[in-house]
Amino acid sequence: MAVEVVYRSSRDPEQLFMDKAEADRHDKMLELAETLGEVLQRAVPSLDEKTAEEVSLFMAQHRDAFSKAFKNNPDALSEVFTNNNK
Amino acid sequence: MAVEVVYRSSRDPEQLFMDKAEADRHDKMLELAETLGEVLQRAVPSLDEKTAEEVSLFMAQHRDAFSKAFKNNPDALSEVFTNNNK
Repeated sequence: MAVEVVYRSSRDPEQLFMDKAEADRHDKMLELAETLGEVLQRAVPSLDEKTAEEVSLFMAQHRDAFSKAFKNNPDALSEVFTNNNK
Repeated sequence: MAVEVVYRSSRDPEQLFMDKAEADRHDKMLELAETLGEVLQRAVPSLDEKTAEEVSLFMAQHRDAFSKAFKNNPDALSEVFTNNNK
């Protein structure tokens, strides 16, 4: 037995990480999802809270592909259904 | 009276532009919105088609802000409600 350091995001206390960089990525992903959810619900009143959360979390989990798509390459989104960790 | 050149995107034939670059931007915006709509509906089954379209069009109309948000700066989204042409 030994004491060990684990890391977590205060936005999702149940998810523990052994690696600080991974915890940090998770926290940043959740921060993006939160902001997206707020903006989309404000912009589209017919979007209910639960669906807004799902949409936002999905996009934040695939932030690299969405970043490329918004920059100049919508086709980058084809990768989101073949690579779930991007 | 004179004949003049106008431009339009085949995705939205009713919207005419005097400037080709503007028509091109409009076409690219609609292309992005279309792709986003397809991806989000596939990823989030509870998202109905009309709402998916609204969400996607909104994001495509503000692609610069969303591009920054997905890259590394969620706060960039604060500008979407103060500047409607970004």
